[in-house]
Amino acid sequence: MIYADYNGSAPLSEPVKVYLRKRLESDLYANPNAIHSIGQKVFKGIEKCREIIAHVVGCYPDQVYFNSGASEGISHIFHSILDQAPADRKIIISSPLEHSVIPNALEYYKNKRGFILKYVEIDREGRVLPASLEKLLKENPSKVAMVTVMAVNNETGVIQPYSELAEICRKHHVEFFCDTTQLIGKGGFNFELSGLDYAVCSGHKIGALSGSGFLIVREPPKMQSLVFGSTQEKGLRGGTQHYIGIETLAVAMNDFKENAHKLADLEAAKLKFENEIQQEFPEAVIVGGGAPRLAGTTLIGYPGIHGQAVQIELESNDIFVTTSAACTDNQPETSKVLKAMGINDQIGRGVIRISLSFCQGAKEYEILALALKAAYNKLARIQAY
Amino acid sequence: MIYADYNGSAPLSEPVKVYLRKRLESDLYANPNAIHSIGQKVFKGIEKCREIIAHVVGCYPDQVYFNSGASEGISHIFHSILDQAPADRKIIISSPLEHSVIPNALEYYKNKRGFILKYVEIDREGRVLPASLEKLLKENPSKVAMVTVMAVNNETGVIQPYSELAEICRKHHVEFFCDTTQLIGKGGFNFELSGLDYAVCSGHKIGALSGSGFLIVREPPKMQSLVFGSTQEKGLRGGTQHYIGIETLAVAMNDFKENAHKLADLEAAKLKFENEIQQEFPEAVIVGGGAPRLAGTTLIGYPGIHGQAVQIELESNDIFVTTSAACTDNQPETSKVLKAMGINDQIGRGVIRISLSFCQGAKEYEILALALKAAYNKLARIQAY
Repeated sequence: MIYADYNGSAPLSEPVKVYLRKRLESDLYANPNAIHSIGQKVFKGIEKCREIIAHVVGCYPDQVYFNSGASEGISHIFHSILDQAPADRKIIISSPLEHSVIPNALEYYKNKRGFILKYVEIDREGRVLPASLEKLLKENPSKVAMVTVMAVNNETGVIQPYSELAEICRKHHVEFFCDTTQLIGKGGFNFELSGLDYAVCSGHKIGALSGSGFLIVREPPKMQSLVFGSTQEKGLRGGTQHYIGIETLAVAMNDFKENAHKLADLEAAKLKFENEIQQEFPEAVIVGGGAPRLAGTTLIGYPGIHGQAVQIELESNDIFVTTSAACTDNQPETSKVLKAMGINDQIGRGVIRISLSFCQGAKEYEILALALKAAYNKLARIQAY
Repeated sequence: MIYADYNGSAPLSEPVKVYLRKRLESDLYANPNAIHSIGQKVFKGIEKCREIIAHVVGCYPDQVYFNSGASEGISHIFHSILDQAPADRKIIISSPLEHSVIPNALEYYKNKRGFILKYVEIDREGRVLPASLEKLLKENPSKVAMVTVMAVNNETGVIQPYSELAEICRKHHVEFFCDTTQLIGKGGFNFELSGLDYAVCSGHKIGALSGSGFLIVREPPKMQSLVFGSTQEKGLRGGTQHYIGIETLAVAMNDFKENAHKLADLEAAKLKFENEIQQEFPEAVIVGGGAPRLAGTTLIGYPGIHGQAVQIELESNDIFVTTSAACTDNQPETSKVLKAMGINDQIGRGVIRISLSFCQGAKEYEILALALKAAYNKLARIQAY
């Protein structure tokens, strides 16, 4: 079996499974906020995990706040920034590339809170144009409440110029949120060096337990709660902590740190795979192929062949890919992101997303190449009838 | 070891551990929203869990929404009701008995959204007086946005007359939210018969994985999202589902259903234990002892002896209790709830909370009785010097 949907969700990583098998045999289950010694041990475990994660991500432990994942993190940051925005700052700038959680949040703030949405321009490779952001900010001085642009696109893997965008926002004294869901634990990232003020992570994207995640905030006192509670997470995020999930987050992030050196090989194997496919099928299109991308992500389309047909062909060979973002997988049409990139329906309906992790590499891409060539040959022949 | 802090957090239950040991050996990890067969299997698993839980709780499966737990559920319901409340409904009615998530949420809606807080009266046993709610609603016709009163108090275990309160609210056409965190999976409850419009549950309170939980809503279309996302949970709660946690919720709820008949024995053993202590120490006070309480919960105080001292004595016998709510355990003073009940500091600072589950009973109470008597004898002697 080749699982090639890491951008959708990662299986529990091997180190996480090993950890959990041992964890299940312990008696260390209690409310981390309880005064008794079991509770205190669980609490100290959480704080140890916070230190490990801060070390890997390049921030201070007291900038890390555990939650249920990136969708909550994003909703929380939007709530914090926009609920506290000055009354005359009514513009939110975003991009047409964002994961559906962002446009859905923006719809709420537009319809229920009276915000006005504006969008930066992107190039044909699906990269935000920093000059376009600069222009929008200059045209709307002191009117912008926040800018939100992702770090890495979940469909194409294209890496956005997020540090440059952060710098522009800082110059204009505008809040910038960058959705780092596809970057943290998957690609090179250092919070301190990034220039970002916020970052988010979902455990299920990096091999940790589902329902776990964290939020990084440069200046925590600026935040207000989305999920109310007691003193958990210094009052910033209520609810008894998902401590078993938090422990697996630390295991997964540590695993990433120890294996990050493999990303270069993964990327090289991917490019070799893509070249091989394009040499045999010059009409195939690697979406965003001209831009820097996340190691292990390929979004590839073959004109006129439906992505779902390719996906089913691959699945019959025990290879699991998706047709675009997991969350919108049921819509058999060109995704909004691809439309914004100017990709036509011939290609857009034909794409599959292959996303591998640092624990995979050349071996998997060799099998993928054989299977994808067979699928294209078979489906192109059917199409030709 | 006797773990006696089930109201704070339950350890993973034995059936949940058995389930997880097996689960870790499967390859069924994927985004439940993905189109491939692994994703679809995970998705079907979630839907099966929803059916099991709905069956145990007495509601329809499409009234169950998975989330990260009760604190999120409460924050979500408050957001849904209060963000959509008519402009002339500015009063929120609550009780002085609520878990800290509620007063903290209320502070936000008061300070940032201009709501006015009013409180129902309670009796000496810590039960809300329905007549007091009726009076407040009559005094403020068409001005109340919502009423929020808990089902079971987390400190005392006292069961509130929630169905009666729901009926009063319905008569006055006012939204009623009842915090069922300490009731679902722990005591007799049927959503349909309860007359409630909303209910919440935290997995970690019932032996399921931390970070899991669900929300029950009688009329889902009335809700708006707190955590934005895609189509997960029918668009009501974004974020990739905590599917492993959801599976353990179903295992834990099923375990509760099969063992609910043991609650009567648990309650009988508790009353025997309490009588025994009170016969030997007539000055000891069972807080809320005159009201119907959750099986397995005792909040007991001995005048002038500090609760923390008793807790430490018991812990030296490998018995784990708390001094009040886990979330406020670090504050060595009479809790706000006990103050509202008219409990003085002599008793209030001396309480410990013993909370057992249906998988415990007479045996644990016998050991607890011996240990608590020894602790009281020892500490009372020290006090007498």
